[in-house]
Amino acid sequence: MNEIVKGKVKTVHSTDDPDQVLIEYHDKVTAGNGKKVSYPEGKGAVCCAISELFFKYIERKAGFLTHFIDRPSPNTMLCKKLTIIPVEVIVRNIAAGSIVRNTLLPEGMEFDPPLVEFNLKDDEKDDPLLTSDRVSLMGYDPVILARRASQLNCHFKKVFGEIGLTVVDFKFECGHASDGGLYLADEISPDSFRLWKDGKSYDKDLFRKDKGDIVEAYTKILSDLQGVI
Amino acid sequence: MNEIVKGKVKTVHSTDDPDQVLIEYHDKVTAGNGKKVSYPEGKGAVCCAISELFFKYIERKAGFLTHFIDRPSPNTMLCKKLTIIPVEVIVRNIAAGSIVRNTLLPEGMEFDPPLVEFNLKDDEKDDPLLTSDRVSLMGYDPVILARRASQLNCHFKKVFGEIGLTVVDFKFECGHASDGGLYLADEISPDSFRLWKDGKSYDKDLFRKDKGDIVEAYTKILSDLQGVI
Repeated sequence: MNEIVKGKVKTVHSTDDPDQVLIEYHDKVTAGNGKKVSYPEGKGAVCCAISELFFKYIERKAGFLTHFIDRPSPNTMLCKKLTIIPVEVIVRNIAAGSIVRNTLLPEGMEFDPPLVEFNLKDDEKDDPLLTSDRVSLMGYDPVILARRASQLNCHFKKVFGEIGLTVVDFKFECGHASDGGLYLADEISPDSFRLWKDGKSYDKDLFRKDKGDIVEAYTKILSDLQGVI
Repeated sequence: MNEIVKGKVKTVHSTDDPDQVLIEYHDKVTAGNGKKVSYPEGKGAVCCAISELFFKYIERKAGFLTHFIDRPSPNTMLCKKLTIIPVEVIVRNIAAGSIVRNTLLPEGMEFDPPLVEFNLKDDEKDDPLLTSDRVSLMGYDPVILARRASQLNCHFKKVFGEIGLTVVDFKFECGHASDGGLYLADEISPDSFRLWKDGKSYDKDLFRKDKGDIVEAYTKILSDLQGVI
């Protein structure tokens, strides 16, 4: 099994099938673009399990293609091999994180309609913000990505709402398979969300701000989600 | 005379008239958000003289209000006192600089129609890019700013074209006066443009990239402009 891409918390391996890859979720969490790192036991498996739940749910409920095929072990996911679009899509319902640092908007400001934004996937450059024009000029359709973003947001708000969590923001990635289809890719776990409840975070901010045990929080989310999905 | 704002290359002083300020252009040039600095003699005066030419031209030809009132000495400009909008407007005809660093677009790519972009005016944060939505949410109208940007671009392309220079990009700032009007502010000099001719730069990139004497280049531009404006 060969490594194709080694990301910050996941590794993509090739498989015998040229159209499939195996994604290994590591017991690792990073923040500040890799500057802060920890290796909590069970973190890979819980993110992999939550991602499996959501990929299946999104395919079933939203009718979107996703790269998920199977979860052969607790922390590995067999996926369709994709050419990833180098643009992260971010949906913001409430102002937090980089939008607060890089504007004059206050944390907690509600966005109605939700904001859809784009970042260039480039760790070395700290994933710089892109305008829709820049996305377009790079050859990708911001309108298609934004429509998908809004639909995902409705589903995530509903599901997380049922377990008492407010979706502050989240990011996702897409890619094209050899069949030309546009597939939801990467992972869908609390690592890629900000989730608030009673002024507390139930996401990677627990780690970013040293406010609690993320594996414990993520495991509770997984168990709550299994009750409603 | 009291200092109101000390910028990187200009200082704004109060005057006896509460509606007017005196802007002093220093013999100073910076790049990389102040990381690289030099103090070339005559640089303040030549930027002040070019700005005077353009402010008068823009008022006359475009019918825009500008903060320019008078130039009482070679390197000072008496201006209307404004509340500056904390958003820099950038017009790009050709890809260069930060848009090349922060996207996958190649240097030299032509934009048709030209791109209008926005940066937050915040030196400490390195003037982060803003989307139109972010500008809007901060309470400013990106449509009004973009329309003004396009009109200025037409005028600048025409005038610089007449002296053989291609306008690659430029930035400008606006502010509101006590009368409520929207005024063109800051300076309009080669410090705020990228100007190309036969593959060479005639702007601050001469300094950024150690490719020539900027006062000599700016003085030639001033003298050429005086022949066509």
